[in-house]
Parts: sequence; C-alpha cells; structure tokens
Amino acid sequence: MVGAGGKMGRMACDALEGADDLELVARAGRQDDPAALARQHGVQVAVDLSVPSASPGVVAGLVAAGVHVVVGTSGWDEAALGRLRDQLREAPEGIGVVVVPNFAIGAVLLVRFAQQAARWFTSVEVLEAHHPAKVDAPSGTAVRTAELVAAARREAGTPAAPDATSSGLEGARGAAVEGVPVHSLRMAGVMAAQEVWLGNDGELLILRHEATDRTAYAPGLLLAVREVAQRPGLTVGLDHLLGV
Amino acid sequence: MVGAGGKMGRMACDALEGADDLELVARAGRQDDPAALARQHGVQVAVDLSVPSASPGVVAGLVAAGVHVVVGTSGWDEAALGRLRDQLREAPEGIGVVVVPNFAIGAVLLVRFAQQAARWFTSVEVLEAHHPAKVDAPSGTAVRTAELVAAARREAGTPAAPDATSSGLEGARGAAVEGVPVHSLRMAGVMAAQEVWLGNDGELLILRHEATDRTAYAPGLLLAVREVAQRPGLTVGLDHLLGV
Amino acid sequence: MVGAGGKMGRMACDALEGADDLELVARAGRQDDPAALARQHGVQVAVDLSVPSASPGVVAGLVAAGVHVVVGTSGWDEAALGRLRDQLREAPEGIGVVVVPNFAIGAVLLVRFAQQAARWFTSVEVLEAHHPAKVDAPSGTAVRTAELVAAARREAGTPAAPDATSSGLEGARGAAVEGVPVHSLRMAGVMAAQEVWLGNDGELLILRHEATDRTAYAPGLLLAVREVAQRPGLTVGLDHLLGV
Amino acid sequence: MVGAGGKMGRMACDALEGADDLELVARAGRQDDPAALARQHGVQVAVDLSVPSASPGVVAGLVAAGVHVVVGTSGWDEAALGRLRDQLREAPEGIGVVVVPNFAIGAVLLVRFAQQAARWFTSVEVLEAHHPAKVDAPSGTAVRTAELVAAARREAGTPAAPDATSSGLEGARGAAVEGVPVHSLRMAGVMAAQEVWLGNDGELLILRHEATDRTAYAPGLLLAVREVAQRPGLTVGLDHLLGV
Repeated sequence: MVGAGGKMGRMACDALEGADDLELVARAGRQDDPAALARQHGVQVAVDLSVPSASPGVVAGLVAAGVHVVVGTSGWDEAALGRLRDQLREAPEGIGVVVVPNFAIGAVLLVRFAQQAARWFTSVEVLEAHHPAKVDAPSGTAVRTAELVAAARREAGTPAAPDATSSGLEGARGAAVEGVPVHSLRMAGVMAAQEVWLGNDGELLILRHEATDRTAYAPGLLLAVREVAQRPGLTVGLDHLLGV
Repeated sequence: MVGAGGKMGRMACDALEGADDLELVARAGRQDDPAALARQHGVQVAVDLSVPSASPGVVAGLVAAGVHVVVGTSGWDEAALGRLRDQLREAPEGIGVVVVPNFAIGAVLLVRFAQQAARWFTSVEVLEAHHPAKVDAPSGTAVRTAELVAAARREAGTPAAPDATSSGLEGARGAAVEGVPVHSLRMAGVMAAQEVWLGNDGELLILRHEATDRTAYAPGLLLAVREVAQRPGLTVGLDHLLGV
Repeated sequence: MVGAGGKMGRMACDALEGADDLELVARAGRQDDPAALARQHGVQVAVDLSVPSASPGVVAGLVAAGVHVVVGTSGWDEAALGRLRDQLREAPEGIGVVVVPNFAIGAVLLVRFAQQAARWFTSVEVLEAHHPAKVDAPSGTAVRTAELVAAARREAGTPAAPDATSSGLEGARGAAVEGVPVHSLRMAGVMAAQEVWLGNDGELLILRHEATDRTAYAPGLLLAVREVAQRPGLTVGLDHLLGV
Repeated sequence: MVGAGGKMGRMACDALEGADDLELVARAGRQDDPAALARQHGVQVAVDLSVPSASPGVVAGLVAAGVHVVVGTSGWDEAALGRLRDQLREAPEGIGVVVVPNFAIGAVLLVRFAQQAARWFTSVEVLEAHHPAKVDAPSGTAVRTAELVAAARREAGTPAAPDATSSGLEGARGAAVEGVPVHSLRMAGVMAAQEVWLGNDGELLILRHEATDRTAYAPGLLLAVREVAQRPGLTVGLDHLLGV
C-alpha cells in the first residue's frame, strides 16, 4: 500500500485487512521506495494511493519490479496513460495495471448506465450535489458523465434535446457540456450525489447515486486488487471489471 | 364560470359538476357579460378563468353585482390587487374575492413548507423541471419560492449558505435569486416538478412536488369556491385556505 | 394493426402515422381476419395489440402468411412462446417475431440495469407505486424485476442482504420475492413508477422510472416495428433491441 | 451534560464547545450525581443524554435543584411525562423542561409538514429506510408519523385512501398503522431516511429526509439549550421551538 498514511490509504488498509483472501504485507510512506519494499516483501499486487505528482514514478517503478498495480491516485491524463501503456507493452511478465478514477461501484455503474441509456431519450440532463467546501463546479465526474452522454447521442444520431427557453435568468439552465446541461448544488449534509435525468414523452428515468462515506470505496478497491493479475496490460476504469 | 371554453375552464366545469354540494348555473364565453349573466342566474360564487387583459374588468363587474369571486387568471400585479382591495372596502355586502396564482394544493404546500423550513438550514437551493416547450427559465413559481425562502432567512438572520466554488463552468451553480440558487431542467416526460433541497451538516430535507395532469387543480378550485363566501375582502393565495 | 380500436391500439396508430419512414396500411378490428387483411394489403410488419385469448392465433396466422409481427398483447407464457418458437423454426422465410411485455424504454432499461447492478451490492429492494385502481400488488413488473435481481445475485454468489429485523409490524418489510423485498404503494397522482434501491456501506444507487402517459410506449413500439424484419425467429423483450 | 461519555453525549459536548454563546461547565458520568454537580458549578441548563432507566430520576433531581433541562434520552412515556408535569407545576421558579424525541430539525419538520398536509390528499403512505442492523420495523418515527397523519385525516373528515388491491403477495402493501401504509427498507449505505408520499389526482407531493451523520442533531440541541429557559413548564417536541 503506497500512501498508506492518507485518508484513502487508511480506509484501504482497513479494507484489505478485513478481507480473508488478501494479506497486507507492506505499507509505504513518503520516505519509502515502493518498488524496493515490494521486492523485499514479495508483493504480488500494489495499491498506489500516493499524490498526483508522485504517482507515475511510483507505478513505473512497481511495474519494472514485476508487480501488478491498482492505481487510485488522480491526475492521470492521456499522455501519462500512453507512457504507461508503452512501458507495459515492453514488460515481459504479463503485468497488469488498473487505473481507477472512481472506486465507488455505484458511481461507476451510474455513469455507465447513463451512457447506455442516453441515445434512447429525447432529453438528458445531469445534476450533482456536493458539500459546500468543494471548489469546482461542476464536479469532474459530472463533466465526464455529460461528455460520455453527449458522445453516445452523437454516435447514435440522437437529435439535440428540445428547449424553447427564450427568457429568464442567467445560469438557470445550468452549464452546457457538449450540449448536455449540468446543474451543481452545494449543500451542507451532502458528501457527493449525482443524478442523471432522462425523459421521453410520458416517461422519466432518473439514475441517482449518493456517497455518504469513504467506506463506499472499499468493495471497488478489493475487486480491483483481486482482478488486476488476470488483466495484463492497462485497464482504465472499474466498469471493465464490473462486466457492464 | 367565466372562460368556460378554455382548457382550465373545461377542467373547472367538470370539477364543479362532479361536486354534490355545488351547482354550475352559468358559463360565460368571450361574448357574454359575466355580471349580467350572474344577476340573471342568481349566481352566488363566480370563477374567473378568463385572460389577463380581461380579468380585472370581469372581477370588478362581478363584485359590483354582489357576487363572490374566485380568480384563477394570471397577471394580477400589486397595482391591480390594490385597486381591487379598494373596491372591496367600499362594497357593502361582505363580498369576498380569492385570487389563486396556483390551484395545485401540493405545489402551494411545498412553497409554504420551504418558507417555514428555510431559516433552520445551512443551505437551501431550488430545482424545477418542466416540459421543453416552456419559454421562461426559471419558472415563476421557482422564482417566487426562492424569494420567499430568501426573505424568511433574512428575517431570521440566517447566514448566507456557504459555497467555496472558485472555478468551473458558467451556469453550473444555477441562477441566483436573492442569493438562493435556482436550477431549471427542461425535460420531455415532465409536465411540472419542483424540489427544494435544505441541508444541515448530517441531514438533508427534500420537498418535491410533481404535477402530471390538469386535474391536479380541481381540489384547490373546489376548496376556494366553497370558502370564498366566508372570507370577506381580498385573499391572495390558496395557503390561507389550507390553514398552513 | 391488430386491435386498432383499443386504447393501446389508438396510441399505436397515432405513433405509426407520425413516423415518416413507416406507413400504416390496414387496421384490424374484432371481426377481421388479420392474416387475410395482411395478404390483401401486402403488409410487411404487423402489430398485435389484440386480447390475450386471441393473440396466439392471430400471431400464428400472420407468421403463416409470411408477415413479421410485433406482439404487445400480454399473456404469453412459456408454453405459448415455445409453440411459436417451433412454428418459426418451420417457417421458411426468415420471419421475425418480437414479443414485447413492456414498450416503455425507460422501464425496460431500469430492469436491465437493476439486473446488472444487483450482484455488486450488499442490499437490494424494489419499490413500485401505481394508481389506486390497480388490483394486484406487487405489479408484475416489480415481481419480474425482483426475480431477475435474485437470479443475478444467485449466479454471482452474492450473499443474502443483511436484515436484523426481529420485532415490529406484519408487512413492514414488504413482500419477499425470492428473498428480495418488494414494496407496493397505491397512490392517486401516480400512473406507474418503480424504484430499485441498491446499497453498499457508504453508497446508495437508486434507479427510478415513472410513466405518466401512454405516449411513453410510442418510441419502443416504433423501434420494434423498424427492427423486427432484421431479427428472424423469436425475440422476447425490448432490451435485445436496445443493445443493453 | 449528563451522559457525556456516550456517542450522543460526545457529539453534544462538541456542539456546545463550538457555540460562542454557550459554556459547557460540567460533564456527569455514571458515577456522578447530576444535581449536586449542577449546584456546585452553578449550572443554568442541563442536558440529559443518560439512559432510559436513569432519565426520570436525573431530570427530577435537576428540576428540584432549580436547573432547566433539555432531555434527549428516549423512553419517556405518557405516565412519566405526567409525573414530570406535576413536579413542574409545584416548582416555584419557572423552571422549563424540553423533552426532545428527535433532535434532527429536518426530521421534525418532515413529520410536522406531513401532519399539516395529510388532510388535503386522497392518498398518503410512509416509507422509511434504515441500516440493516436496526431490529425494529417500522421505525418508531415512521409509526409516529403515520399515527399523526391518520389523526389529522380523522379530525378533518378526510375519506380513507382508495385501494383496489384484491390479489398479490402478503406484505406488499406494507404495515397498516391506523390505516396508513408504512413500508420499511433495510439497506447498507443508509443511516436513516424517511419519505411521506401524498397524492391527489394529477399531483404528487413527496417529503423526504435523510440523516447521514450524528452531527445532524447539533443544531436542534443548541436550539433547545438556548430556548429552554424561556419556556417554563414542560414542552415535548422540537416542533414547538421551530415555530411550525
């Protein structure tokens, strides 16, 4: 476990220790060399929950040491993923890396379901609510959801959602992400929630997810740790492991 | 029934004919003089569902004829209400007029409850969804709800809701109505819905109303017709009749 | 269109007439022989919206006449489907029949998503709300949803949902359908709604569908009519046409 | 603070210490005599968060010592409240006691709003969701809500909600509490949630409350502590302090 001292790291250690079929053999803090530690302890699977600036180096070192890696650190852009993909192609041993932007299974399913449903509805909008200390609006997940929804509709040739709005107040219709309105609420009492509304004449489908506690990330983490060795190369996103 | 030929008018006629304790004695169309018709038929209570331009004249005529009036036509501003209040003060007979901006009992209760609850919560936001043919956003009801919520918080000295948003996309945080964010969705499959979200650390109260059919206005209309004779002078809003 | 005079039939005729790429060439009532009518008018695709007692005979006749059929009539059990499957195997011409228990796209997606998500959650329960004139509780769709959820969990080896209830009132925990609790609300103001709640520690996924009008069935009907000729043999359920 | 060592007690101490206008002067554990401690420290207001068996004695002692008391311990039945009311009538000093079955402001408002709205709707049902370790179903709050809803409808002469259910599965329609159906979900990922659904033809009002954390009780506790001295005699329920 790399980054074992952070909030996510502590939750992750608890989850691993609670699993009968897994053993947590080493915890790496800021001063440690994760690859050396992994070699020393015969680690099979590493979990990277370090910081964005350190994560690519940590993962490269672990892969070079022949260790499968589950990456939960944020900040992996297309360029970094490309470099990792290249490294894995060279790595002889069938090493797998799973990069997981979101460990909450329900959140991942929500995005996937929205993407699958989007083409079949006249109207689609995204709504998210987070605690008031959040600095960005919309959330990264909501923007990503809207982008995937927009892409699915484009590919299927779904017409743009109708909207006759011609007067009113600035901002009422939300932020448009590739034509999909996204509405952000900031609320005491909410940790993270997201809703996707999909409407046809006479019917409404609402997909809603709430995360109320960091423990929500445990089942997704355990799933990734259990599956990564069976997935050589690079896998991005928990949805591939969920079979949806 | 004035305006008996319109959509609301037909619904209202159906509702009155379905009520055992009420009798629909006359229907006035565009060519008719409602006050003359009322005198001729001995009408006790008139319902005005005409058009905004005609409504003040219709109501003044009926009041002068000694008829109680339930007004469901929109467009009554403070000036028009003031003139009506003056006329009713002169009217000797204890005539009552009830002006009802919204006959849907649930919608009226939602606004009233939001107003009562607003001062007790750290965060309050308003969300409304309507069919895609609606031309204004936010809806008039949502703006009015936000204004009442803002006023209740101001009177109680409730601090402004916290919001750390410092980056993101234009419009994501909705339209600010006196500091209360309002989010407008436009959706096939929805006629009219409104939600008020109220949050404190550790708890969330959501008040939600949906209208799916014009029949939603019937119980409020019947209530107003039954009560108007017991309410001399001017009453604005169904909430006064609902005892909340 | 077989059964063109019923409520569903009239909606279906309106939908077909509103579609530029489809032509409604014949309407069969109770007295008509659908197969003869189809031959006479050169019908390519028939829609059966007759009654349960008539439907198997109607469909067999149409298939024998070389016509693709979309079946929206309820009451097709496994035995009837088996006989139709046998007939289609004999039919030389690559004739397709699509049997659609539910034309509302959102309702079909909801069930499919619940089925896919079920294995990943600690707890799953089903809630449905219908108008107060409904005679059965739970609804057929809710029972079917619970059965599919239960089967998905059984296949994946998901443990039973925890439930410490040891005291209380009869009925509070709903009806158990293969171990999945189903709760039925009967409400004025609701036509048909269904929710599936899925919970893990720290997260909650709620899938919600509402149908407010028979027009909700139009897009699913048009989809089936357009696709049936490309699907020789028997297809049961709109989900196969939705690609989920 | 009596019962300062329990979970609620620790939350309450944190809340009081975070309030600028209040000072926490003494904490009583199991061995302490709260009344003696109060006299010693010149306590003006005591908070009782002890255990049901101890609470009546603790409160009686504090009242005799001339201390206002906020009672958050459960288990106060009508007989115990009657004895306390008698004692307060004798107490010369205008001492106030506020007994608070639920400190979550949103939960209290939800019940109050449901009670006010109930008479105006054709159908009303109650739904609650709690964590799977809860032993009773329905929750005490849900039963109380249904009782208050039923009483409000009885007093107003509202007819029973229509329900044509004549076939189906045992338990589907929930537990009937004085004729009001109550549905209990037990879900990982939920701490405590309650919904009241109210329906008329064409409209639906849903009041929803979720508590996700014990911090939800802080604002209600602080409100009671600040107000109890202005309320001589016995007050039962936070709603009286919320002005609804």
